[in-house]
Amino acid sequence: MTDSPEYLKKRAFFDSLLTIYGRKPVLEALEDSSLPVHKLHLADSNRKDQLISRIEQLAAERQIEIAHCDRKALSRISKNAKQDQGVALDLALPKYGDAETFLKENRKQHYELLALDGITNPQNLGMIIRSACAGGIDGLILPRKGCAQIDPLVIKASVGTLFKTRILRCDQLAPVLKKFSEQGARVCALSSHASDTLRTIDDREPTIFVLGNETHGVSPAVENACTHRLRIPMQNGVESLNVAITAALISFRHQY
Amino acid sequence: MTDSPEYLKKRAFFDSLLTIYGRKPVLEALEDSSLPVHKLHLADSNRKDQLISRIEQLAAERQIEIAHCDRKALSRISKNAKQDQGVALDLALPKYGDAETFLKENRKQHYELLALDGITNPQNLGMIIRSACAGGIDGLILPRKGCAQIDPLVIKASVGTLFKTRILRCDQLAPVLKKFSEQGARVCALSSHASDTLRTIDDREPTIFVLGNETHGVSPAVENACTHRLRIPMQNGVESLNVAITAALISFRHQY
Repeated sequence: MTDSPEYLKKRAFFDSLLTIYGRKPVLEALEDSSLPVHKLHLADSNRKDQLISRIEQLAAERQIEIAHCDRKALSRISKNAKQDQGVALDLALPKYGDAETFLKENRKQHYELLALDGITNPQNLGMIIRSACAGGIDGLILPRKGCAQIDPLVIKASVGTLFKTRILRCDQLAPVLKKFSEQGARVCALSSHASDTLRTIDDREPTIFVLGNETHGVSPAVENACTHRLRIPMQNGVESLNVAITAALISFRHQY
Repeated sequence: MTDSPEYLKKRAFFDSLLTIYGRKPVLEALEDSSLPVHKLHLADSNRKDQLISRIEQLAAERQIEIAHCDRKALSRISKNAKQDQGVALDLALPKYGDAETFLKENRKQHYELLALDGITNPQNLGMIIRSACAGGIDGLILPRKGCAQIDPLVIKASVGTLFKTRILRCDQLAPVLKKFSEQGARVCALSSHASDTLRTIDDREPTIFVLGNETHGVSPAVENACTHRLRIPMQNGVESLNVAITAALISFRHQY
């Protein structure tokens, strides 16, 4: 593969696609006319019950392309054969993008991002998205590897905010964070062992806050790509906070 | 029953008891020598397996009273026949108390409390306790009715902070909040429809922040007992936050 303009354009488009699956989530997404849908995928093996008929009817009404394929091809699209129930839907999200493209376009801007390293709990991911969106964070870097991926559970836990939040995808976090720091961003690993606190940082520089795994914290490779380490001061000898709480305290610190 | 000093003393003692149940939670509590244990309850019907033997051995080593009773009596103690597995343990928590007693003792003090109204999700209750403790809130008013009660799920979600947090019990919230406001406390219902924000309040007065049910917010009876309504400002048209996130933003607002 080459990085021709054609390829990059295609890649940007596919990066903006979010594939959801399962009969109920797909039906709910089709019923919400504010969601831009790209394509509906149906497995040939689906029994034509009421739910499937309703899904096909809504897709037809909204003039959405329907692709039929065999069970195996569908599971490659949903990436979750156990739970897709033979149905997948590509959403084309305007706020979905690529972390490196964001960096190119915002080199001279001020921004605050969250980057997620090994956040595996979908409930936490959804809550992080909700808090970041409500607190006014400019975007959320979500690597394709090692994190929970956006699925119906996450969408539910985000309570509708997923579609309002800039989600920036990358393959792996460490090399992307290095590029951001080379372009002048401060990259801060949150760690309860850090000596500096959230309060000490200079708010005028573009900043990425890196949140680590619920149990193990930020991984060594990612911490290595960070320029700063910060902690949130805690009382009563408490040693750690839920990662979604940490995300909220960061996101809201200018707001209230 | 009369409110004799004898009765009040007894009541205060029983208010400080937290009964947990289930073989694994009880075993873990017995292994933690920092937890003050009052009494172990065992059902006669328990098969004497390895876990039960270990529980009995630990109780003997720690010189803890063991009460044997039938299955039915045990379920009255655990209040959860389905999950107690024939084992219950009374913890005597030094930071457990009664909301009205706290008011009597702290009339002229400055304090900040959270009060919970209809928080039914144990995961949320545990997270609220953890955030309140880490953020340095002085206590948490937890009514006996309409809220999730402290059980192994809550203890787990609180990640050990339950035992460091002042939990103030009451039967119903509204009459207790009225007493606090009569004694000069500001009682603030958190509501996304309020016009004042968290930032506008005067930090010198003793304050109670009232958090409502995850879906329905603060109930009308409780809201009626509040003296103020506050909201947390949100961006991007987001309408609400998870209740544990709200608790954290309140608890940490002086800390970072």
